[in-house]
Amino acid sequence: MSNWEVFLSPYKQAVEELKVKLKGLREQYQRSSQHTPIEFVTARVKPITSILDKAKRKNMSLDRLEEMQDIAGVRIVCQFVTDIDTIVALVHARKDFKVIEERDYIKEKKESGYRSYHMVVNYSVHTIEGQKDVMVEIQVRTMAMNFWATIEHSLNYKYSGEIPEDIKRRLQRAAEAAFQLDEEMSKIQGEVREAQQILSQQRGST
Amino acid sequence: MSNWEVFLSPYKQAVEELKVKLKGLREQYQRSSQHTPIEFVTARVKPITSILDKAKRKNMSLDRLEEMQDIAGVRIVCQFVTDIDTIVALVHARKDFKVIEERDYIKEKKESGYRSYHMVVNYSVHTIEGQKDVMVEIQVRTMAMNFWATIEHSLNYKYSGEIPEDIKRRLQRAAEAAFQLDEEMSKIQGEVREAQQILSQQRGST
Amino acid sequence: MSNWEVFLSPYKQAVEELKVKLKGLREQYQRSSQHTPIEFVTARVKPITSILDKAKRKNMSLDRLEEMQDIAGVRIVCQFVTDIDTIVALVHARKDFKVIEERDYIKEKKESGYRSYHMVVNYSVHTIEGQKDVMVEIQVRTMAMNFWATIEHSLNYKYSGEIPEDIKRRLQRAAEAAFQLDEEMSKIQGEVREAQQILSQQRGST
Amino acid sequence: MSNWEVFLSPYKQAVEELKVKLKGLREQYQRSSQHTPIEFVTARVKPITSILDKAKRKNMSLDRLEEMQDIAGVRIVCQFVTDIDTIVALVHARKDFKVIEERDYIKEKKESGYRSYHMVVNYSVHTIEGQKDVMVEIQVRTMAMNFWATIEHSLNYKYSGEIPEDIKRRLQRAAEAAFQLDEEMSKIQGEVREAQQILSQQRGST
Repeated sequence: MSNWEVFLSPYKQAVEELKVKLKGLREQYQRSSQHTPIEFVTARVKPITSILDKAKRKNMSLDRLEEMQDIAGVRIVCQFVTDIDTIVALVHARKDFKVIEERDYIKEKKESGYRSYHMVVNYSVHTIEGQKDVMVEIQVRTMAMNFWATIEHSLNYKYSGEIPEDIKRRLQRAAEAAFQLDEEMSKIQGEVREAQQILSQQRGST
Repeated sequence: MSNWEVFLSPYKQAVEELKVKLKGLREQYQRSSQHTPIEFVTARVKPITSILDKAKRKNMSLDRLEEMQDIAGVRIVCQFVTDIDTIVALVHARKDFKVIEERDYIKEKKESGYRSYHMVVNYSVHTIEGQKDVMVEIQVRTMAMNFWATIEHSLNYKYSGEIPEDIKRRLQRAAEAAFQLDEEMSKIQGEVREAQQILSQQRGST
Repeated sequence: MSNWEVFLSPYKQAVEELKVKLKGLREQYQRSSQHTPIEFVTARVKPITSILDKAKRKNMSLDRLEEMQDIAGVRIVCQFVTDIDTIVALVHARKDFKVIEERDYIKEKKESGYRSYHMVVNYSVHTIEGQKDVMVEIQVRTMAMNFWATIEHSLNYKYSGEIPEDIKRRLQRAAEAAFQLDEEMSKIQGEVREAQQILSQQRGST
Repeated sequence: MSNWEVFLSPYKQAVEELKVKLKGLREQYQRSSQHTPIEFVTARVKPITSILDKAKRKNMSLDRLEEMQDIAGVRIVCQFVTDIDTIVALVHARKDFKVIEERDYIKEKKESGYRSYHMVVNYSVHTIEGQKDVMVEIQVRTMAMNFWATIEHSLNYKYSGEIPEDIKRRLQRAAEAAFQLDEEMSKIQGEVREAQQILSQQRGST
């Protein structure tokens, strides 16, 4: 149809393939009755208007759009903060993903309260025109981080990035509540693991 | 293959149809650029072992399994607590669902800390054997409620329903953190709506 | 977004629901290890440009588009010609479909060679605006009829409905070959059924 | 759950990934408004009972099951016989598939009447246990070949491979009818291409 169709085609393909690959991992964990570090996976190709907005904002010429790192985006959402490390290690270990950049907004959260682990990977797709490498941004976060980020994103959209000060403060309080929820969950997770260890030692000693 | 296949067949069909119907509503909200009260929808048919466990626990004979209300289950997860009311009203308004029971565990949360709105509906499916009515349990909750419930469910499973006291206390603290997160989010939601109203009034006065 | 989004929304929903309902039937046949009269199901909403073309061709004003019978379309493809009768009976027996028109292009094939069984049903969907009845066209055909129709459709598209005479003749010969294939398959089907009957009688007599 | 779960896991994953990759190609053809050589794609992992049957029949010990070439199977169905060559070339050109065996049952059809192009490829998947290479059988055929093969397969199943002579003869006649249909379609395809060429030359000369 248009040049956009052709340009976005390998990104669409990459996103579909990563979704199947990551959902496949989750199913393997479930079948093996291990705790799965992947609760759910979502993916999207950035809408054309958002690509154009970002290019303008970043003063990026349209013939260099391939340098934009988040045209293809995949999000992995997990239960516990420690699951994030497991996922990051899994991504690094794969030969079909090549990590080219990483930002840890969990150790160093953004001023807004945003927390997530970001990776940019190089991924190879085969189209009807031949093989092509594209960049895909992978975001890894807990359900609480995701919940908060979803809300912040819609507020940012509504206020075109200029969230009023008082709402910003409320968002920060909500971010703290989300952080608190992750903390409480982590404590439970620890106890669960201890309890499981005790149980398996008891079984071993009989 | 077996009687279970035949027995579960209309439940499987009901679950597939409800998933398409509820996801369809979400897409309609998105296309109309309104706030969607449905963030995501999941659905499942209860595994046979869980049906047998529950029948035993409830002292229910196997020829009365049709009275079990949660063999088919659908879960609707939303962003804000007030979205839950919107969804409950939507379900009541439909002619293809007939609500036969309701329990509001949000106004009256369970001792464990569990919060959710439950409805049981009668739903009519057509199978190769003809028409059949089945019961489907619909659970409606916020993302924070869902997060907490997911964890509680896996702990319950691990401790076969007998969660140790200290872990129970931690779970309750986590439930409070989840509740707090919903509270903070609700406050933001209010401000967002006010802000939108101000904006549209300003537009109207020029 | 536009009026088209709003207008097409219930048709999209109807098509999704029918697809799940009909694919569900196929799976039930497969699970019951009976011969399934449904080989596969496809569905589509007519593209806007095709709706406009047809309205112009039929001299239909745009405020009467709801009278167009094939905006929502579902196709059921089967192995044997006799499967078509089974499917037609299944559609008639359902309370959620109301057959309002039928055309049998198998008994009376079109001059072009086209064969298929067409039904128009009324189907009720619930949207965020409330309940709405829409018409859906259901086409039932064998794999050979479908193969031929796919080719004819792309030729019609390429020649804007004016297929040259010599290609028309070739298409008719292909239609005859497709018909021949259905005939040969029907004969085999008969023998298979006879063979099965003999086998089960032999088992009964021992 | 069992060793079968673990053993079949990478095959399941391979089949899911190939389905997404091949359906992606079809969509790219459709978006580019070129003729798509891929009409539809189906895929399956061989059921455990069929794996065991085949191992027994081939006298293959169970610790050498990895040598069985069709545990993972993908089928690509196309409109025209010449599309098959296009697909075979596409598969050879990819770096993520490595063709290790090929059998052309179109040039040399089986005695039964069976026609199809078979390739066995090596494909690399990443599981939670690490990277693993599996074999996948890719079958390429036209819709007419597929129609016939579907019928033959169910007859073979019913007669446990011992189809009676008279039904075998009928099957061969049906195979000839399917072949005839492909021949007639090929002739039309030729004319369509010629017609298109004439049309584009006319456009060029004005």
